[in-house]
Formats: sequence, C-alpha cells, structure tokens
Amino acid sequence: MERIDDLGVKNLKLIQDTDLFCFGTDAVLLSAFATVKPNAKVVDLCSGNGIIPVLLSGKTKAEKIIGVEIQKEPFLLAKRSAELNGICGRVDFINCDAKGIKEHLPSGYADTVTCNPPYMNGNWGFLSPSDKKALARHEITINIDDVAKISAYLLKCGGYFSMVHRAERLCDVICAMRKYKIEPKRIRFVHSYLQSAPKLFLIEGISGAKPALKVLKPLVIYGENGEYTDEVKRLYKGENC
Amino acid sequence: MERIDDLGVKNLKLIQDTDLFCFGTDAVLLSAFATVKPNAKVVDLCSGNGIIPVLLSGKTKAEKIIGVEIQKEPFLLAKRSAELNGICGRVDFINCDAKGIKEHLPSGYADTVTCNPPYMNGNWGFLSPSDKKALARHEITINIDDVAKISAYLLKCGGYFSMVHRAERLCDVICAMRKYKIEPKRIRFVHSYLQSAPKLFLIEGISGAKPALKVLKPLVIYGENGEYTDEVKRLYKGENC
Repeated sequence: MERIDDLGVKNLKLIQDTDLFCFGTDAVLLSAFATVKPNAKVVDLCSGNGIIPVLLSGKTKAEKIIGVEIQKEPFLLAKRSAELNGICGRVDFINCDAKGIKEHLPSGYADTVTCNPPYMNGNWGFLSPSDKKALARHEITINIDDVAKISAYLLKCGGYFSMVHRAERLCDVICAMRKYKIEPKRIRFVHSYLQSAPKLFLIEGISGAKPALKVLKPLVIYGENGEYTDEVKRLYKGENC
Repeated sequence: MERIDDLGVKNLKLIQDTDLFCFGTDAVLLSAFATVKPNAKVVDLCSGNGIIPVLLSGKTKAEKIIGVEIQKEPFLLAKRSAELNGICGRVDFINCDAKGIKEHLPSGYADTVTCNPPYMNGNWGFLSPSDKKALARHEITINIDDVAKISAYLLKCGGYFSMVHRAERLCDVICAMRKYKIEPKRIRFVHSYLQSAPKLFLIEGISGAKPALKVLKPLVIYGENGEYTDEVKRLYKGENC
C-alpha cells in the first residue's frame, strides 16, 4: 500500500510502499551524521525509496545528490518523491547494480558517499532474490566489501564515506574500509537506551586519510520514558549529530 | 620511591616504584574482562610490575600465569611481589623482549593471552629508550601488530586474547587481530562518565574463530558524584565484567 510521509524537514515528503522496504531511524541518523559540504556531489548507495537523498536535499547545500538503487520499484518511488518535492535535477536516481556504477559515474566523482546497506549476512535460508524486502535487508546482491570498493572508486581523495551498520559487523566494516584506503575517522554507537548494548553504529571515513579515529559519545534513541530522546527529536527535525 | 599497595582482592599486594610506571584502572579492568578458564595457562605481555598476573592469581583458577616484561626494574618488582604473595611457581615472570618469546615458550602454549600495552604511537619527540616510563607508555619496543603476532603464536586454537587500548586505536587493534586470525568477539568501551566519549576499550578475540562480535554496554568509571560507579567498585573487589 502506498503512502506519503511528511519528513518533518523543510516540508519534504517521501512516497513509500508498505509492500517494499520502508525507511527507519537508521536512515535519519545517517543523514544527520554524514559530512556533506556546500556544493558537494553526493552519491547514496543502496538508496531504496530515496530517503537519504531527499533528506540531504533539505539539510545540506549539496550541488548534486544521486541515489543508486538496484530494485526497480523503490527506484520509481524515489523518482516520484523527487518530482513531488520539486527537487529533480539536483536530486537524481540511477536504477542499476551499484557494482556496475562505473558505467554511469566517473572515478573521483563524489565528495561524499553514503550507504545504509543491507545488514544481514549469510544463512539466508529460504530467502529468494525475488523477495523485494529481503534484497533490502540481506547481503544478496551487495556486501560490505563491495560497498567499500565502490565508494573508494567514487570518492575524490579526501572525500567522505558514511555508513550505518549493525554493531556485530563493526570489524567487517572497519577492515573493508581500510582495505580500500578509506580511513575511519568518526564512529558513533547507537544505543536504544542509555545503558544498553549498542545495536547500530555510524561510521565516517575519509578517502586516503591518515589514521586518527574519534569514538564519539553514545547516541541514545529512547529516554527512560520510552520516548525519543531530545537529541533524536532534533535529528528528526534536520539537525546534525 | 617504593611502596606496597593492597590490591583489595584476597589480600594480594603489589610492590610498586613511583619512579617507574604504576598500574592504573585499565589493568584492573583488563583483569576483570579477560576470560581465564580453570586450569588455563595464561601469558601476560608487557606485564610491567606484574599487576595483571598477580590479580589473575587471586581472581581465577588458572594453573600457570606468566608475565613477560622487557624492562629489568619492573620485572624484579614483579618477582618480589610474587614472593611477597606466596604465589611463586604458579605465577612466574620472564624478563625478555616479547618479540623473542619463542626462545622461552612454545607455540600454542597459552589458553589466554592478556596485554595492557604501551598506548602511544608515533611523534615521540625527545623520548629516549632509556626513559623507563616512556617505554611503558609509548610504542618504542613493541606495537599493536607485534602484540597480535606474538599472541597468535602463543595461543592455542580457540584460545582467548584480551587487550585494553585507547579508543583512537580501535581500527589498528581490530585489523591487527584479524591479520593474525584472532577474531574479535567482545568489545566494551570504557567511558569516564555515562554520556562522555569513551577513552579506552576492552577487546577479546578467539584464535581461529569465526566472526561474531558483541559490542557490550558501556563500562562507566565515574558516577555523577565523581566517585567510582558501583560496577567499578565491584571490579576492584575482584568481580568480572
């Protein structure tokens, strides 16, 4: 079923289909975490229904934001959301396998690459490549190594790569980034509650940079009352973290 | 100046010399974090004045605990602490460069390796190898890659490696462990205060294991009143974390 969500940032809206993968808090957090400088060219990999490009169009002064999505249905929704928001041209989408991005964009094109990738690896059991939600959740068509390799291709030297992933994949993400010379610079763990183990982390690296990591203070989603913390409320309104 | 500290665990005591490196909270935390099974053989690298072997002798049922220390003076203090505590034989110390451990211990000797290494890398400026505190703090004679390589040599397949290090070195530690097939399994970040950025982390890996990382809940040192948290007080009394 289709619906139109108000994103709470500069009147931006997003068309979603509940039969497909719908965006979650992680996309909002990544949009708040990624460094996007004025006039930057941004590429969002595994873009889904385009939540991150649409949010970044309102939050940043990026010159161009391109979402790359392998699945036709969310790609078409993303295009329609761009039209609905009157941001076509500045925000664009490519319907292709990110591993074939070389046919669409030159090396060193991007100042920033973002990615909210499929989280789950291995043991897919009965999952089928025709399962549209499964493709968005599981590493069927793309994995962490692919994402880092593609990002290294797309980024200028000194460009920013930002990703959100599950805490249990921390080592895979760090090692893949280093393998492709994207040096991790900032990590922020995302905790449901203040004293719980983190389920997610946000990580940003810089292509070709020297090691110097900052592990930031925890990002906590819910307060003791079970509501979003003040910080998360601010991030939903477009602030950065 | 020499002094004898009561460690608060089973009447164990430690001889320290304030002209040399004295142990800190990080050694207590590492002793509380490391997995040491009954009858285990344990090797503690960069053992200094022997704080970790002495603590582990009281906290665990390890069969043998060997501290390896390159500097003569802290090695001699450690030997005297073992005598003072009546734990010689079960706890022993080797005065050698850990990089030469092959001459003293066979491959696969250890069920557990622990290390609270020098934290600082590069830019030593005017530091001299004859500066005894500097050797304990800076990667002059041993670095993270060395520690991981030596630990991989010492560990049985399935053996535990535990380390404490500065948060900014997280990527270096993770990549070195993976390089030598010690798979990170548990990480716990250490925060001075609940909502501050972590300064240290504890990490444990298993030699030859498959990836499956748990990022644990934050370990917080000080409460709002500026005193140790209840958990840290318990760790100082010999509990595990």
